[in-house]
Amino acid sequence: MKRVTILGSTGSIGCQTVEIIKKHPKRFKVLGLSAHKNIDLLEEQLIELRPQIVAVLDKAAAMELKKRVEGKVRVLVGAEGLEELASLPESDLVVNAIVGSAGLDPTIAAIEADKELALANKESLVVGGEIVRGLVQKRGARVIPVDSEHSAIFQCLQGESPGDVVRLLLTGSGGPFRGKRLEELKDVAVEEALAHPRWKMGRKISIDSATLMNKGLEIIEAHFLFGIDYDRIEVVIHPQSIIHSMVEFRDGSIKAHLGWADMRIPIQYALSFPERLSSPLAGLDFSDLGQFTFEKPDLVNFPCLELALQAARNGRTYPAVLNAANEEAVAAFLDRRIPFILIPQIIGQTLDTHSPRNANDLSVLKEVERWARNRTKELIKRASEL
Amino acid sequence: MKRVTILGSTGSIGCQTVEIIKKHPKRFKVLGLSAHKNIDLLEEQLIELRPQIVAVLDKAAAMELKKRVEGKVRVLVGAEGLEELASLPESDLVVNAIVGSAGLDPTIAAIEADKELALANKESLVVGGEIVRGLVQKRGARVIPVDSEHSAIFQCLQGESPGDVVRLLLTGSGGPFRGKRLEELKDVAVEEALAHPRWKMGRKISIDSATLMNKGLEIIEAHFLFGIDYDRIEVVIHPQSIIHSMVEFRDGSIKAHLGWADMRIPIQYALSFPERLSSPLAGLDFSDLGQFTFEKPDLVNFPCLELALQAARNGRTYPAVLNAANEEAVAAFLDRRIPFILIPQIIGQTLDTHSPRNANDLSVLKEVERWARNRTKELIKRASEL
Repeated sequence: MKRVTILGSTGSIGCQTVEIIKKHPKRFKVLGLSAHKNIDLLEEQLIELRPQIVAVLDKAAAMELKKRVEGKVRVLVGAEGLEELASLPESDLVVNAIVGSAGLDPTIAAIEADKELALANKESLVVGGEIVRGLVQKRGARVIPVDSEHSAIFQCLQGESPGDVVRLLLTGSGGPFRGKRLEELKDVAVEEALAHPRWKMGRKISIDSATLMNKGLEIIEAHFLFGIDYDRIEVVIHPQSIIHSMVEFRDGSIKAHLGWADMRIPIQYALSFPERLSSPLAGLDFSDLGQFTFEKPDLVNFPCLELALQAARNGRTYPAVLNAANEEAVAAFLDRRIPFILIPQIIGQTLDTHSPRNANDLSVLKEVERWARNRTKELIKRASEL
Repeated sequence: MKRVTILGSTGSIGCQTVEIIKKHPKRFKVLGLSAHKNIDLLEEQLIELRPQIVAVLDKAAAMELKKRVEGKVRVLVGAEGLEELASLPESDLVVNAIVGSAGLDPTIAAIEADKELALANKESLVVGGEIVRGLVQKRGARVIPVDSEHSAIFQCLQGESPGDVVRLLLTGSGGPFRGKRLEELKDVAVEEALAHPRWKMGRKISIDSATLMNKGLEIIEAHFLFGIDYDRIEVVIHPQSIIHSMVEFRDGSIKAHLGWADMRIPIQYALSFPERLSSPLAGLDFSDLGQFTFEKPDLVNFPCLELALQAARNGRTYPAVLNAANEEAVAAFLDRRIPFILIPQIIGQTLDTHSPRNANDLSVLKEVERWARNRTKELIKRASEL
């Protein structure tokens, strides 16, 4: 019986995690849950899973929930509550399914408390990669990625020596706008950008898939997860999304992970690792699938990927700025305050005016993130006033 | 330093094994070599690799070689010589690259002498599968497959639990006649059948690829190597031959091995296992590859695969008869004594008149094989007299 804490249980990954755990009641027991502010859904999950403790980031929502569940479950409040939840002494595994850089502190808390960590929050590594990598090495922590690409790579590395790896091949569908030119993307509606052709995902990550920023963030995530240099991480566009990523070894062998584009596979793997549990998903019929195609990513018409590559190579606090600017720009697009094609422009402008600092100090990171968010908000404001 | 004996060093796999070993003189030392009768090439290999001992199956050729190398190297003769070579006390690894069922006895000898075995001789498992599997279990032997498909599966199983495997997906190019109908194959020339579109291989196995018998033999090989039921082994035609085979696990995950269609990759892996050595082969460029396609195998126009599937499911001595009949029929086709489309007909007729016996006794297997060869030869004679 694994005792599990789910951070961000009301989001897309969180809900799917809950669903899988409910299918395996003899294997998993939920000790803790957390939400940003969706306390209605959190309350439903509470009733079903009966955790000992929950945390709500938004203070007003936390107070409201406290009233509703008085005496039945302990409710922790705010960022501190989240960190306390991430380091519950009784839990074996923490699933970090928080969206955005708010996931970094709980990641650090979980590792420092020697918890096994199933990491869906890529921002923990994009923003805090150096700190988290150092901590993981220091404490010998086990981090199992939940992102489908990183889960694929993690699985391909099982039974292999890290020193034999020569290249990581991150696959991506190319998103809903693959093949389009920048001009054609000027006036795309939010709904079009959210309509991902293969994966069912949350809103923020769906937009990141449409801009290809997601692939850029994944490169940074892969770099810190697997300790591979950026010049040995390659993006391959594979619109069918059946190959979820690949690892090339020094002898010319490549291992790939394939399957349906369904997040329940990598989530379940992260929960059950090192075991595999049965899944209700039917096997692939390759003759039905017909064909797989591959293309180079289009850096000209999808400048977010190019910005991410530059930020990755420049290192230091550039990835943190990239991420903060992207979060703000995507939120503005989702609120219909800026058009789609301004997302990369605004991120690029924020990066251009950044004075980089070393990224191994959490307080520096926070300061830089604050600066980046303010700067991006200014640029968004200016753009939306035009 | 691994001390290696290569059985069948003058064949296609044998020569490539020698080539790889020459590239890694600090890792491998050749102790023994063997040939059927190509003593000219064997003598060249002797001079270069300086083994302690060699074996030649053909007695006249062995005597001739003895005269040539008198006093420089010990020359063993015939089937007994081959078995002695396979069980050399000083060797760590035996590479069995013999073509045909002559490879079975040396496989048994190597396992009984507790040698690690790199197995390219699929007939060891097709004919003697039950005996070899029993011996491997009894002695806890390590058998590393060399066939590209089985090497792919073996690699995909590293770091995994055998109990999690739900399906093996054996890929095949479909051979030079993929898409053709039986009528169109009536008068194909030997040269056309030998012209494999993807893999550079020996003559016998090239014909087996053209009839799809090779895929059938590989199913039986996979069954005995990995202990997987026949109804969980599937053939997928993948004409580009970049995916070399796949394993599906119970959670819906599929692992695949990919690479250039170059036997040096699986041969080197079998030599270096559990390590991987560098290879001069350049990495795959997926956007250059463009696309992968998949089809179901065509059992109607390629009846050899259907015959093999039936023989596999019927078990007992049927696979041994299938293999012996196929060896004779392919030899007759290569000698231009029968047309291509008679290969499956003659094998089918031999199988139809076989009275199966238990396959766990070597002397029974030899007897059945003799019967099958004689029966097939009769059928070939009758056909060529028409």
